[in-house]
Amino acid sequence: MSPLKFEIHKELENGLGRVGTIHTSHGDIQTPAFVAVGTKGTVKSLTPEQVRDSGVQTIIANTYHLYLEPGDENIKKMGGLHKAMNWQGPLMTDSGGFQVFSLGAAYGKNGVSKISHGKTEELILPEFNDAEVPKIAKIDPNGVMFRDHSKGDAHYFTPEKSIDIQHNLGADIIFAFDECTSPHESLHYQKEALERTHRWAKRSLEYHKSKPNAETQALFGIVQGGRDETLRKESAEFIGALDFDGFGIGGSFDKEDMDKAVQWCNEILPKEKPRHLLGIGEPEDLFMAVENGCDLFDCVAPTRIARNGGVYTKEGKINILNQKFREDQSPLDSECGCYACKNFSRSYIAHLFHAKEMLGSTLLSIHNIYFIAHMVDGMREAILNNNFDKYKKDFLSRYYNF
Amino acid sequence: MSPLKFEIHKELENGLGRVGTIHTSHGDIQTPAFVAVGTKGTVKSLTPEQVRDSGVQTIIANTYHLYLEPGDENIKKMGGLHKAMNWQGPLMTDSGGFQVFSLGAAYGKNGVSKISHGKTEELILPEFNDAEVPKIAKIDPNGVMFRDHSKGDAHYFTPEKSIDIQHNLGADIIFAFDECTSPHESLHYQKEALERTHRWAKRSLEYHKSKPNAETQALFGIVQGGRDETLRKESAEFIGALDFDGFGIGGSFDKEDMDKAVQWCNEILPKEKPRHLLGIGEPEDLFMAVENGCDLFDCVAPTRIARNGGVYTKEGKINILNQKFREDQSPLDSECGCYACKNFSRSYIAHLFHAKEMLGSTLLSIHNIYFIAHMVDGMREAILNNNFDKYKKDFLSRYYNF
Repeated sequence: MSPLKFEIHKELENGLGRVGTIHTSHGDIQTPAFVAVGTKGTVKSLTPEQVRDSGVQTIIANTYHLYLEPGDENIKKMGGLHKAMNWQGPLMTDSGGFQVFSLGAAYGKNGVSKISHGKTEELILPEFNDAEVPKIAKIDPNGVMFRDHSKGDAHYFTPEKSIDIQHNLGADIIFAFDECTSPHESLHYQKEALERTHRWAKRSLEYHKSKPNAETQALFGIVQGGRDETLRKESAEFIGALDFDGFGIGGSFDKEDMDKAVQWCNEILPKEKPRHLLGIGEPEDLFMAVENGCDLFDCVAPTRIARNGGVYTKEGKINILNQKFREDQSPLDSECGCYACKNFSRSYIAHLFHAKEMLGSTLLSIHNIYFIAHMVDGMREAILNNNFDKYKKDFLSRYYNF
Repeated sequence: MSPLKFEIHKELENGLGRVGTIHTSHGDIQTPAFVAVGTKGTVKSLTPEQVRDSGVQTIIANTYHLYLEPGDENIKKMGGLHKAMNWQGPLMTDSGGFQVFSLGAAYGKNGVSKISHGKTEELILPEFNDAEVPKIAKIDPNGVMFRDHSKGDAHYFTPEKSIDIQHNLGADIIFAFDECTSPHESLHYQKEALERTHRWAKRSLEYHKSKPNAETQALFGIVQGGRDETLRKESAEFIGALDFDGFGIGGSFDKEDMDKAVQWCNEILPKEKPRHLLGIGEPEDLFMAVENGCDLFDCVAPTRIARNGGVYTKEGKINILNQKFREDQSPLDSECGCYACKNFSRSYIAHLFHAKEMLGSTLLSIHNIYFIAHMVDGMREAILNNNFDKYKKDFLSRYYNF
């Protein structure tokens, strides 16, 4: 019995996009849904209530980071991650695969010229710079040896270890341990990595099913395969045939490859289970993902750009540090109903950034996650009302000023 | 007609301490009351609702800082400081005198070995270090020339200029422009500075009364005089005789001098007007202040120490970064009803600090201002219930582990 139930309420004419509800042990997720990133067990600069009140239904935390600090055993002693961070709603943890590899072998190998995969928060920090960091992950058939990026201690992750950690954290939806390759790896390496990911997926699943946690925590398998059509389809077939509760679509995509890769996967993956596109993304990416049958997607962008002054508006992205906003008495977005827009002006928020006041990051983070969450809610409504194409065209033409 | 009304409901037997209500244009302040510091128009790391829900009735912002960034004219365009920062309750601004002088002549002159005056937030930042910063304020009979501590531009403050700025900001209670001397200045210099402060007080008052803002904004005169009994009493006589709406007691005190200075002032100041002890302080200081007849006090300590991991508890101050709190599942203070204590454990908050997550500062700031605000509320209750001495003894003996 899966601890997760998924209902589909309506589909797009293309047979891929859909509206549904995921029922978890901690409540329902109306899909498609934007998942806020809470890497270290907190959506940066926000209280759980601020996250919830911005329209976010689900948070995804990071297995790699929480394993290192404060430790998954410690989180278990706190009563699990829901209780520790005081988030009563649905919660996810990724497998830590992306982070383990992005800090070592996979990322350091050929260099990734452009990562549109949204989970690049770590990669843009100085300590993750390709040129400066020695390879600190070593792969063998059984697992990965890696070093803590900040303390340097050696650690060893296996599929079973990742599942154990995620059981200690206790999220409603967890992920199988995988290897996320760079799109610039050779086809030979992609094949080798994909076989490993498939073996690890089976081990993750078998180990998870052998534990009582399988009754309350759902496990998603991750489809990989880079941008190669044959490998992607092979991976969707393989992972899709396993008894997972749902699926993740992983990979560091070049932007132009992403829609095809997503389509290849979702045409094969079993329709009746939910699909999460990992680490995506910008408004146009989210429309693409929903149209092509993804139900969930997480991205650090809304909160990361917020801390640097970046603001989503219906007319595109602006930066609040621009001098012209110093005396602009209008809200961040005149059509927005978020806490920041209802109570503060661009001029005041600009002041907070110029004065380096933390409240500035908090207000922009609230606005940006509200913006993205409500944009996705709009897609849901549009599918239900049979006008997805119009909503998409109107939204994107205004946002990108086509 | 004063824009402010003050009622006294009950007095201590010593004839100094009292419980009252200050009625302002933006609501009532039940006194004695802790005033939260919002230097740059925000209580650091908190939304206005988080400040209010922690039991804070009033915020004090800083004239010097807001004049420089974003500019008082700009705040006026935002509709005034209440509207800009979305604070509907009573609001104060200080005169900027302390900051102008602390960045230049007064502070740089002889060196201040210990400043228990709470407004030392700026002074502990590197750019304010006595040894590194050249004198950047120059006093003449008419006013003070100073340089922006960050940009270096020259500015000139007079009593009239300070009042103009405070009129643009629009707080309910504003302060006369004064010179705050170091307790280590010579008696000769203290006398000279005090005469200047008195002349400036008269000019501030006359200028303020000539403006329509006097109908909605109350002006407090500031008593100075360092730690010299004669000068303190002379200042209380002089300032107390002027038609101010209330009074501030200023000065950079050595801790052992503070209670006497406060007592000298309040025995002379007219009983029927409210008194604000500027920039104080720690729990024992606040008991001293209330006992000796102060109605209001502001202090950066609760939020400043919070950002460094410092936590007030009934059993004294702790630092959440201490290793022993990593696995401590109890709340910050087991008897506290604040948002942080009701929803999070010491272990989780310790994790936030170790992981350098902003939410840690937010939670400790909420707790600390709640702690201090409720400690002062307790004094109010105790005076009303005729058991102030017992409340004080119980609180302080437990807090300082006597």
